[in-house]
Amino acid sequence: MYINEPMKKYLDESASGAPTPGGGSVAALVGALGAALSSMVCNFTVGKKKYKDVEAEVSEILAQSEQLRDDLTGLMQADTEAYSQVSAAYGMPRKSSKEKKARTQAIQEALKVALEVRLKAAKDAYEVLKLNEPLVEKGNVNLISDVGVAVALAEAALHSAALNVEINLAGIKDEAFCQEIRSQLDPIVDDGTRIKTEVWEKVEIAISG
Amino acid sequence: MYINEPMKKYLDESASGAPTPGGGSVAALVGALGAALSSMVCNFTVGKKKYKDVEAEVSEILAQSEQLRDDLTGLMQADTEAYSQVSAAYGMPRKSSKEKKARTQAIQEALKVALEVRLKAAKDAYEVLKLNEPLVEKGNVNLISDVGVAVALAEAALHSAALNVEINLAGIKDEAFCQEIRSQLDPIVDDGTRIKTEVWEKVEIAISG
Repeated sequence: MYINEPMKKYLDESASGAPTPGGGSVAALVGALGAALSSMVCNFTVGKKKYKDVEAEVSEILAQSEQLRDDLTGLMQADTEAYSQVSAAYGMPRKSSKEKKARTQAIQEALKVALEVRLKAAKDAYEVLKLNEPLVEKGNVNLISDVGVAVALAEAALHSAALNVEINLAGIKDEAFCQEIRSQLDPIVDDGTRIKTEVWEKVEIAISG
Repeated sequence: MYINEPMKKYLDESASGAPTPGGGSVAALVGALGAALSSMVCNFTVGKKKYKDVEAEVSEILAQSEQLRDDLTGLMQADTEAYSQVSAAYGMPRKSSKEKKARTQAIQEALKVALEVRLKAAKDAYEVLKLNEPLVEKGNVNLISDVGVAVALAEAALHSAALNVEINLAGIKDEAFCQEIRSQLDPIVDDGTRIKTEVWEKVEIAISG
Protein backbone atom coordinates (compact mmCIF):
# COMPACT_ATOMS: atom_id res chain seq x y z
CA MET A 1 0.00 0.00 0.00
CA TYR A 2 1.52 3.30 -1.15
CA ILE A 3 0.01 5.17 1.82
CA ASN A 4 2.28 3.27 4.23
CA GLU A 5 5.42 3.67 2.11
CA PRO A 6 7.70 6.70 1.71
CA MET A 7 6.17 9.50 -0.34
CA LYS A 8 9.30 9.41 -2.50
CA LYS A 9 8.35 5.94 -3.76
CA TYR A 10 4.94 7.08 -4.98
CA LEU A 11 6.39 10.17 -6.70
CA ASP A 12 9.26 8.22 -8.29
CA GLU A 13 6.97 5.49 -9.61
CA SER A 14 4.48 8.07 -10.94
CA ALA A 15 7.29 9.74 -12.88
CA SER A 16 8.75 6.47 -14.15
CA GLY A 17 8.13 4.42 -17.28
CA ALA A 18 5.97 1.96 -15.30
CA PRO A 19 2.24 2.11 -16.15
CA THR A 20 1.14 2.76 -12.54
CA PRO A 21 0.54 4.98 -10.65
CA GLY A 22 -0.85 7.14 -13.45
CA GLY A 23 -3.11 10.17 -13.73
CA GLY A 24 -6.15 8.40 -12.28
CA SER A 25 -4.37 7.49 -9.06
CA VAL A 26 -2.71 10.91 -8.74
CA ALA A 27 -6.10 12.62 -9.23
CA ALA A 28 -7.51 10.65 -6.27
CA LEU A 29 -4.47 11.61 -4.14
CA VAL A 30 -4.95 15.29 -4.95
CA GLY A 31 -8.61 14.95 -3.93
CA ALA A 32 -7.42 13.44 -0.63
CA LEU A 33 -5.05 16.42 -0.16
CA GLY A 34 -7.99 18.80 -0.72
CA ALA A 35 -9.99 16.86 1.90
CA ALA A 36 -7.01 17.03 4.31
CA LEU A 37 -6.89 20.83 4.05
CA SER A 38 -10.66 21.04 4.63
CA SER A 39 -10.17 18.94 7.76
CA MET A 40 -7.35 21.24 8.92
CA VAL A 41 -9.63 24.27 8.64
CA CYS A 42 -12.28 22.40 10.71
CA ASN A 43 -9.67 21.37 13.30
CA PHE A 44 -8.69 25.03 13.77
CA THR A 45 -12.36 25.99 14.22
CA VAL A 46 -13.80 23.29 16.51
CA GLY A 47 -13.06 23.96 20.20
CA LYS A 48 -12.37 27.70 19.69
CA LYS A 49 -14.50 30.05 21.83
CA LYS A 50 -14.93 32.50 18.94
CA TYR A 51 -16.50 29.76 16.79
CA LYS A 52 -18.72 28.15 19.45
CA ASP A 53 -21.92 28.94 17.51
CA VAL A 54 -20.81 26.92 14.48
CA GLU A 55 -19.03 24.14 16.37
CA ALA A 56 -21.68 21.45 15.82
CA GLU A 57 -21.92 22.17 12.10
CA VAL A 58 -18.15 22.33 11.57
CA SER A 59 -17.69 19.08 13.55
CA GLU A 60 -20.10 17.44 11.11
CA ILE A 61 -18.12 18.83 8.13
CA LEU A 62 -14.91 17.46 9.70
CA ALA A 63 -16.39 13.97 10.04
CA GLN A 64 -17.36 14.06 6.36
CA SER A 65 -14.04 15.44 5.10
CA GLU A 66 -12.14 12.78 7.07
CA GLN A 67 -14.37 10.08 5.54
CA LEU A 68 -13.73 11.49 2.06
CA ARG A 69 -9.99 11.68 2.71
CA ASP A 70 -10.03 8.01 3.67
CA ASP A 71 -12.10 7.05 0.60
CA LEU A 72 -9.90 9.02 -1.81
CA THR A 73 -6.71 7.56 -0.33
CA GLY A 74 -8.19 4.12 -0.94
CA LEU A 75 -9.05 5.08 -4.53
CA MET A 76 -5.45 6.25 -5.11
CA GLN A 77 -4.43 2.63 -4.44
CA ALA A 78 -7.45 1.03 -6.15
CA ASP A 79 -6.74 2.93 -9.38
CA THR A 80 -3.26 1.41 -9.67
CA GLU A 81 -4.74 -2.08 -9.24
CA ALA A 82 -7.62 -1.51 -11.68
CA TYR A 83 -5.30 -0.02 -14.29
CA SER A 84 -2.91 -2.97 -13.98
CA GLN A 85 -5.86 -5.17 -15.00
CA VAL A 86 -6.51 -2.97 -18.05
CA SER A 87 -2.84 -3.22 -19.06
CA ALA A 88 -2.88 -6.98 -18.56
CA ALA A 89 -6.00 -7.33 -20.74
CA TYR A 90 -4.44 -5.29 -23.57
CA GLY A 91 -1.39 -7.59 -23.31
CA MET A 92 -3.44 -10.79 -23.89
CA PRO A 93 -2.65 -12.86 -27.01
CA ARG A 94 -4.65 -12.12 -30.16
CA LYS A 95 -3.61 -14.60 -32.77
CA SER A 96 -6.68 -16.80 -33.16
CA SER A 97 -10.20 -15.42 -33.40
CA LYS A 98 -10.96 -17.16 -30.08
CA GLU A 99 -8.04 -15.30 -28.45
CA LYS A 100 -9.18 -12.04 -30.00
CA LYS A 101 -12.67 -12.48 -28.62
CA ALA A 102 -11.40 -13.33 -25.12
CA ARG A 103 -9.05 -10.34 -25.19
CA THR A 104 -11.76 -7.92 -26.29
CA GLN A 105 -14.08 -9.15 -23.56
CA ALA A 106 -11.34 -8.87 -20.89
CA ILE A 107 -10.52 -5.30 -22.02
CA GLN A 108 -14.18 -4.27 -21.90
CA GLU A 109 -14.59 -5.70 -18.40
CA ALA A 110 -11.33 -4.20 -17.07
CA LEU A 111 -12.19 -0.76 -18.51
CA LYS A 112 -15.55 -0.79 -16.74
CA VAL A 113 -13.89 -1.66 -13.41
CA ALA A 114 -11.25 1.10 -13.84
CA LEU A 115 -13.98 3.53 -14.83
CA GLU A 116 -15.98 2.83 -11.66
CA VAL A 117 -12.92 3.67 -9.53
CA ARG A 118 -12.43 6.98 -11.35
CA LEU A 119 -16.14 7.85 -11.28
CA LYS A 120 -16.10 7.32 -7.50
CA ALA A 121 -13.02 9.58 -7.22
CA ALA A 122 -14.83 12.28 -9.24
CA LYS A 123 -17.91 12.00 -6.99
CA ASP A 124 -15.79 12.16 -3.83
CA ALA A 125 -13.85 15.22 -5.09
CA TYR A 126 -17.22 16.87 -5.79
CA GLU A 127 -18.31 16.12 -2.20
CA VAL A 128 -15.08 17.77 -0.95
CA LEU A 129 -16.01 20.88 -2.96
CA LYS A 130 -19.52 20.88 -1.46
CA LEU A 131 -18.14 20.81 2.11
CA ASN A 132 -16.21 24.01 1.44
CA GLU A 133 -19.34 26.01 0.56
CA PRO A 134 -20.36 26.34 4.22
CA LEU A 135 -16.74 26.16 5.44
CA VAL A 136 -15.68 29.35 3.64
CA GLU A 137 -18.34 31.20 5.67
CA LYS A 138 -18.01 29.37 8.98
CA GLY A 139 -14.41 28.15 9.26
CA ASN A 140 -11.64 29.97 11.17
CA VAL A 141 -10.94 33.07 9.10
CA ASN A 142 -7.19 32.78 9.77
CA LEU A 143 -7.22 29.70 7.53
CA ILE A 144 -9.13 31.27 4.67
CA SER A 145 -6.30 30.65 2.18
CA ASP A 146 -6.42 26.93 3.04
CA VAL A 147 -10.11 26.86 2.05
CA GLY A 148 -9.00 28.38 -1.27
CA VAL A 149 -6.30 25.76 -1.81
CA ALA A 150 -8.76 22.99 -0.81
CA VAL A 151 -11.26 23.97 -3.53
CA ALA A 152 -8.54 24.52 -6.17
CA LEU A 153 -7.21 21.00 -5.52
CA ALA A 154 -10.65 19.36 -5.28
CA GLU A 155 -11.68 20.95 -8.60
CA ALA A 156 -8.46 19.80 -10.31
CA ALA A 157 -9.04 16.30 -8.86
CA LEU A 158 -12.66 16.27 -10.09
CA HIS A 159 -11.74 17.38 -13.61
CA SER A 160 -8.77 14.98 -13.75
CA ALA A 161 -10.86 12.02 -12.57
CA ALA A 162 -13.55 12.95 -15.10
CA LEU A 163 -10.95 13.09 -17.89
CA ASN A 164 -9.86 9.58 -16.95
CA VAL A 165 -13.47 8.40 -17.03
CA GLU A 166 -13.76 9.96 -20.51
CA ILE A 167 -10.71 8.11 -21.81
CA ASN A 168 -12.15 4.84 -20.48
CA LEU A 169 -15.52 5.60 -22.09
CA ALA A 170 -13.75 6.12 -25.43
CA GLY A 171 -12.72 2.45 -25.31
CA ILE A 172 -16.07 1.03 -24.15
CA LYS A 173 -18.46 -0.23 -26.82
CA ASP A 174 -21.63 -0.47 -24.68
CA GLU A 175 -23.33 2.80 -25.69
CA ALA A 176 -26.14 2.61 -23.10
CA PHE A 177 -23.53 2.19 -20.35
CA CYS A 178 -21.54 5.18 -21.66
CA GLN A 179 -24.63 7.37 -21.75
CA GLU A 180 -25.58 6.38 -18.19
CA ILE A 181 -22.08 7.24 -16.90
CA ARG A 182 -22.06 10.60 -18.70
CA SER A 183 -25.44 11.47 -17.17
CA GLN A 184 -23.88 10.97 -13.73
CA LEU A 185 -20.61 12.76 -14.50
CA ASP A 186 -21.53 15.87 -16.50
CA PRO A 187 -23.69 17.61 -13.84
CA ILE A 188 -21.08 17.21 -11.07
CA VAL A 189 -18.27 18.52 -13.29
CA ASP A 190 -20.33 21.64 -14.07
CA ASP A 191 -21.54 22.18 -10.52
CA GLY A 192 -18.03 21.54 -9.16
CA THR A 193 -16.69 24.41 -11.30
CA ARG A 194 -19.47 26.68 -10.01
CA ILE A 195 -18.65 25.87 -6.38
CA LYS A 196 -14.90 26.33 -6.88
CA THR A 197 -15.40 29.71 -8.60
CA GLU A 198 -17.77 31.01 -5.92
CA VAL A 199 -15.66 29.85 -2.96
CA TRP A 200 -12.42 31.11 -4.56
CA GLU A 201 -13.95 34.57 -5.08
CA LYS A 202 -15.00 34.74 -1.42
CA VAL A 203 -11.47 33.76 -0.37
CA GLU A 204 -9.90 36.43 -2.58
CA ILE A 205 -12.24 39.11 -1.24
CA ALA A 206 -11.43 38.07 2.35
CA ILE A 207 -7.67 38.23 1.66
CA SER A 208 -7.62 41.54 -0.19
CA GLY A 209 -9.80 42.95 2.60
CA MET B 1 11.95 15.11 5.74
CA TYR B 2 8.37 14.22 4.76
CA ILE B 3 9.51 12.80 1.41
CA ASN B 4 11.26 9.91 3.17
CA GLU B 5 8.41 9.19 5.55
CA PRO B 6 5.13 7.33 4.94
CA MET B 7 2.66 9.30 2.84
CA LYS B 8 0.10 8.70 5.61
CA LYS B 9 2.11 10.90 7.96
CA TYR B 10 2.05 13.87 5.60
CA LEU B 11 -1.68 13.51 4.95
CA ASP B 12 -2.53 13.04 8.64
CA GLU B 13 -0.47 16.06 9.71
CA SER B 14 -1.96 18.21 6.92
CA ALA B 15 -5.45 17.33 8.16
CA SER B 16 -4.59 17.86 11.83
CA GLY B 17 -4.79 20.89 14.11
CA ALA B 18 -1.02 21.43 13.80
CA PRO B 19 -0.05 24.54 11.79
CA THR B 20 2.13 22.62 9.28
CA PRO B 21 1.99 21.28 6.65
CA GLY B 22 -0.55 23.81 5.37
CA GLY B 23 -1.83 24.98 1.99
CA GLY B 24 1.55 26.35 0.87
CA SER B 25 3.31 23.03 1.34
CA VAL B 26 0.47 21.03 -0.21
CA ALA B 27 0.44 23.36 -3.24
CA ALA B 28 4.14 22.60 -3.83
CA LEU B 29 3.47 18.84 -3.53
CA VAL B 30 0.67 19.04 -6.10
CA GLY B 31 3.08 20.88 -8.42
CA ALA B 32 5.55 18.02 -7.92
CA LEU B 33 2.80 15.51 -8.80
CA GLY B 34 2.10 17.47 -12.01
CA ALA B 35 5.82 17.35 -12.84
CA ALA B 36 5.88 13.58 -12.11
CA LEU B 37 3.08 12.95 -14.62
CA SER B 38 4.88 15.09 -17.23
CA SER B 39 7.97 12.93 -16.65
CA MET B 40 5.90 9.76 -17.04
CA VAL B 41 4.63 10.94 -20.44
CA CYS B 42 8.25 11.63 -21.49
CA ASN B 43 9.39 8.23 -20.21
CA PHE B 44 6.76 6.52 -22.39
CA THR B 45 7.93 8.52 -25.42
CA VAL B 46 11.74 8.41 -25.24
CA GLY B 47 13.16 5.18 -26.72
CA LYS B 48 10.02 4.35 -28.73
CA LYS B 49 10.57 3.84 -32.47
CA LYS B 50 7.37 5.71 -33.36
CA TYR B 51 8.66 8.82 -31.53
CA LYS B 52 12.27 8.76 -32.74
CA ASP B 53 11.94 12.16 -34.45
CA VAL B 54 11.05 13.93 -31.20
CA GLU B 55 13.32 11.90 -28.92
CA ALA B 56 15.94 14.62 -28.37
CA GLU B 57 13.34 17.26 -27.59
CA VAL B 58 11.31 15.03 -25.25
CA SER B 59 14.50 13.95 -23.45
CA GLU B 60 15.19 17.63 -22.78
CA ILE B 61 11.63 18.11 -21.44
CA LEU B 62 12.15 15.08 -19.19
CA ALA B 63 15.35 16.52 -17.73
CA GLN B 64 13.53 19.76 -16.95
CA SER B 65 10.42 18.12 -15.46
CA GLU B 66 12.60 15.94 -13.22
CA GLN B 67 14.48 19.04 -12.05
CA LEU B 68 11.17 20.81 -11.32
CA ARG B 69 9.84 17.75 -9.48
CA ASP B 70 12.93 17.80 -7.30
CA ASP B 71 12.64 21.57 -6.66
CA LEU B 72 8.94 21.39 -5.82
CA THR B 73 9.45 18.45 -3.47
CA GLY B 74 12.07 20.55 -1.66
CA LEU B 75 9.64 23.48 -1.48
CA MET B 76 6.97 21.21 0.04
CA GLN B 77 9.39 20.74 2.96
CA ALA B 78 10.77 24.31 2.95
CA ASP B 79 7.25 25.75 3.27
CA THR B 80 6.62 23.86 6.51
CA GLU B 81 9.89 25.24 7.95
CA ALA B 82 9.28 28.81 6.78
CA TYR B 83 5.73 28.78 8.10
CA SER B 84 6.92 27.52 11.50
CA GLN B 85 9.07 30.67 11.69
CA VAL B 86 6.03 32.85 10.93
CA SER B 87 4.04 31.09 13.68
CA ALA B 88 6.93 31.50 16.12
CA ALA B 89 7.20 35.23 15.35
CA TYR B 90 3.46 35.76 15.93
CA GLY B 91 3.89 33.95 19.26
CA MET B 92 6.59 36.35 20.53
CA PRO B 93 5.84 38.42 23.69
CA ARG B 94 4.31 41.87 23.19
CA LYS B 95 4.03 43.49 26.58
CA SER B 96 6.64 46.26 26.44
CA SER B 97 7.03 48.58 23.46
CA LYS B 98 10.51 47.09 22.95
CA GLU B 99 8.97 43.60 22.76
CA LYS B 100 6.29 44.84 20.38
CA LYS B 101 8.89 46.34 18.04
CA ALA B 102 11.02 43.15 18.05
CA ARG B 103 7.91 41.02 17.38
CA THR B 104 6.76 43.21 14.48
CA GLN B 105 10.20 43.07 12.90
CA ALA B 106 10.43 39.28 13.32
CA ILE B 107 6.98 38.84 11.73
CA GLN B 108 7.89 41.04 8.76
CA GLU B 109 11.12 39.13 8.17
CA ALA B 110 9.49 35.69 8.55
CA LEU B 111 6.65 36.63 6.17
CA LYS B 112 9.16 37.65 3.49
CA VAL B 113 11.04 34.34 3.81
CA ALA B 114 7.76 32.34 3.61
CA LEU B 115 6.67 34.42 0.64
CA GLU B 116 9.89 33.69 -1.28
CA VAL B 117 9.29 29.93 -0.86
CA ARG B 118 5.74 30.26 -2.21
CA LEU B 119 6.76 32.57 -5.06
CA LYS B 120 9.34 29.97 -6.12
CA ALA B 121 6.66 27.25 -5.99
CA ALA B 122 4.39 29.39 -8.20
CA LYS B 123 7.22 29.95 -10.69
CA ASP B 124 8.09 26.24 -10.77
CA ALA B 125 4.44 25.23 -11.28
CA TYR B 126 4.32 27.72 -14.18
CA GLU B 127 7.42 26.06 -15.68
CA VAL B 128 5.67 22.67 -15.41
CA LEU B 129 2.74 24.12 -17.38
CA LYS B 130 5.13 25.45 -20.05
CA LEU B 131 6.72 22.01 -20.55
CA ASN B 132 3.31 20.56 -21.40
CA GLU B 133 2.75 22.92 -24.33
CA PRO B 134 5.15 20.97 -26.58
CA LEU B 135 4.45 17.68 -24.77
CA VAL B 136 0.75 17.62 -25.71
CA GLU B 137 1.84 17.66 -29.37
CA LYS B 138 4.91 15.44 -29.17
CA GLY B 139 4.36 13.03 -26.26
CA ASN B 140 3.11 9.45 -26.63
CA VAL B 141 -0.54 9.84 -27.61
CA ASN B 142 -1.55 6.86 -25.43
CA LEU B 143 -0.77 9.04 -22.41
CA ILE B 144 -2.73 12.07 -23.57
CA SER B 145 -4.99 12.01 -20.47
CA ASP B 146 -1.88 12.18 -18.26
CA VAL B 147 -0.86 15.41 -20.02
CA GLY B 148 -4.33 16.73 -19.16
CA VAL B 149 -4.02 15.76 -15.50
CA ALA B 150 -0.49 17.25 -15.38
CA VAL B 151 -1.71 20.69 -16.51
CA ALA B 152 -4.80 20.59 -14.28
CA LEU B 153 -2.59 19.89 -11.25
CA ALA B 154 0.12 22.38 -12.23
CA GLU B 155 -2.49 25.13 -12.69
CA ALA B 156 -4.09 24.35 -9.31
CA ALA B 157 -0.60 24.40 -7.73
CA LEU B 158 0.24 27.74 -9.40
CA HIS B 159 -3.01 29.38 -8.28
CA SER B 160 -2.72 27.92 -4.78
CA ALA B 161 0.89 29.06 -4.37
CA ALA B 162 -0.08 32.52 -5.65
CA LEU B 163 -2.95 32.68 -3.13
CA ASN B 164 -0.46 31.93 -0.37
CA VAL B 165 1.84 34.69 -1.65
CA GLU B 166 -1.17 37.05 -1.57
CA ILE B 167 -1.98 36.23 2.04
CA ASN B 168 1.66 36.91 2.99
CA LEU B 169 1.62 40.21 1.06
CA ALA B 170 -1.48 41.26 3.04
CA GLY B 171 0.66 41.15 6.20
CA ILE B 172 3.74 42.92 4.75
CA LYS B 173 4.02 46.68 5.25
CA ASP B 174 6.81 47.36 2.72
CA GLU B 175 4.69 48.62 -0.23
CA ALA B 176 7.57 48.73 -2.75
CA PHE B 177 8.37 45.09 -1.97
CA CYS B 178 4.71 44.10 -2.39
CA GLN B 179 4.48 45.85 -5.75
CA GLU B 180 7.67 44.16 -6.98
CA ILE B 181 6.36 40.71 -6.00
CA ARG B 182 2.98 41.33 -7.68
CA SER B 183 4.75 42.38 -10.89
CA GLN B 184 6.46 38.98 -10.93
CA LEU B 185 3.40 36.96 -9.95
CA ASP B 186 0.48 38.39 -11.93
CA PRO B 187 1.79 37.66 -15.46
CA ILE B 188 2.60 34.01 -14.70
CA VAL B 189 -0.81 33.41 -13.10
CA ASP B 190 -2.53 34.77 -16.22
CA ASP B 191 -0.27 32.98 -18.69
CA GLY B 192 -0.53 29.76 -16.67
CA THR B 193 -4.32 29.80 -17.07
CA ARG B 194 -3.91 30.37 -20.82
CA ILE B 195 -1.56 27.39 -21.17
CA LYS B 196 -3.78 25.10 -19.07
CA THR B 197 -6.89 26.02 -21.07
CA GLU B 198 -5.16 25.49 -24.44
CA VAL B 199 -3.52 22.18 -23.50
CA TRP B 200 -6.70 20.87 -21.85
CA GLU B 201 -8.72 21.61 -25.01
CA LYS B 202 -6.22 19.72 -27.16
CA VAL B 203 -6.42 16.76 -24.78
CA GLU B 204 -10.24 16.73 -24.86
CA ILE B 205 -10.27 16.88 -28.67
CA ALA B 206 -7.77 14.00 -28.83
CA ILE B 207 -9.88 11.89 -26.44
CA SER B 208 -13.26 12.51 -28.04
CA GLY B 209 -11.63 11.73 -31.42
